[in-house]
Amino acid sequence: MPRVAVDVLLKREILDPQGRAVEEALPGLGYEGVSEVRVGKHLEFEVPVDGDALTERVEAMCAGFLTNPVIESYRWRVIDGAERADA
Amino acid sequence: MPRVAVDVLLKREILDPQGRAVEEALPGLGYEGVSEVRVGKHLEFEVPVDGDALTERVEAMCAGFLTNPVIESYRWRVIDGAERADA
Repeated sequence: MPRVAVDVLLKREILDPQGRAVEEALPGLGYEGVSEVRVGKHLEFEVPVDGDALTERVEAMCAGFLTNPVIESYRWRVIDGAERADA
Repeated sequence: MPRVAVDVLLKREILDPQGRAVEEALPGLGYEGVSEVRVGKHLEFEVPVDGDALTERVEAMCAGFLTNPVIESYRWRVIDGAERADA
């Protein structure tokens, strides 16, 4: 069963207060020069279909439930076991 | 300046209530059979160093500030402009 990873961020033109907070905290912790910080959601799940049906299902889930397309954008990919963030 | 994407999830042995909630909501929305849902954080940022220094900097930031290594695990990669979740 394919495992899908979805990354969600606020659109680039939308203010991201959480990203701003991280960016402002980093220099005080010794990490200078980190910029353009954006913070969003990461989801992983298994979907019981493949190929075009997988694409259609994931796009529908992302646009219809997992994200708010008015203010968020997303990107998804199929991952293998070694690419899991909790591997 | 390299752009880094970090994915953070609760460790696999830790209960993920948000993932569970998404998993339980999906069938009612018409998405049957989606399983093993995990929900975490996605961060993107630019770091002003390269090569080994980049690896060292990002690992230190992830382990020391961006995640809680007791309950969370993470994975990071360098991305190009087209791979941004807000591209």
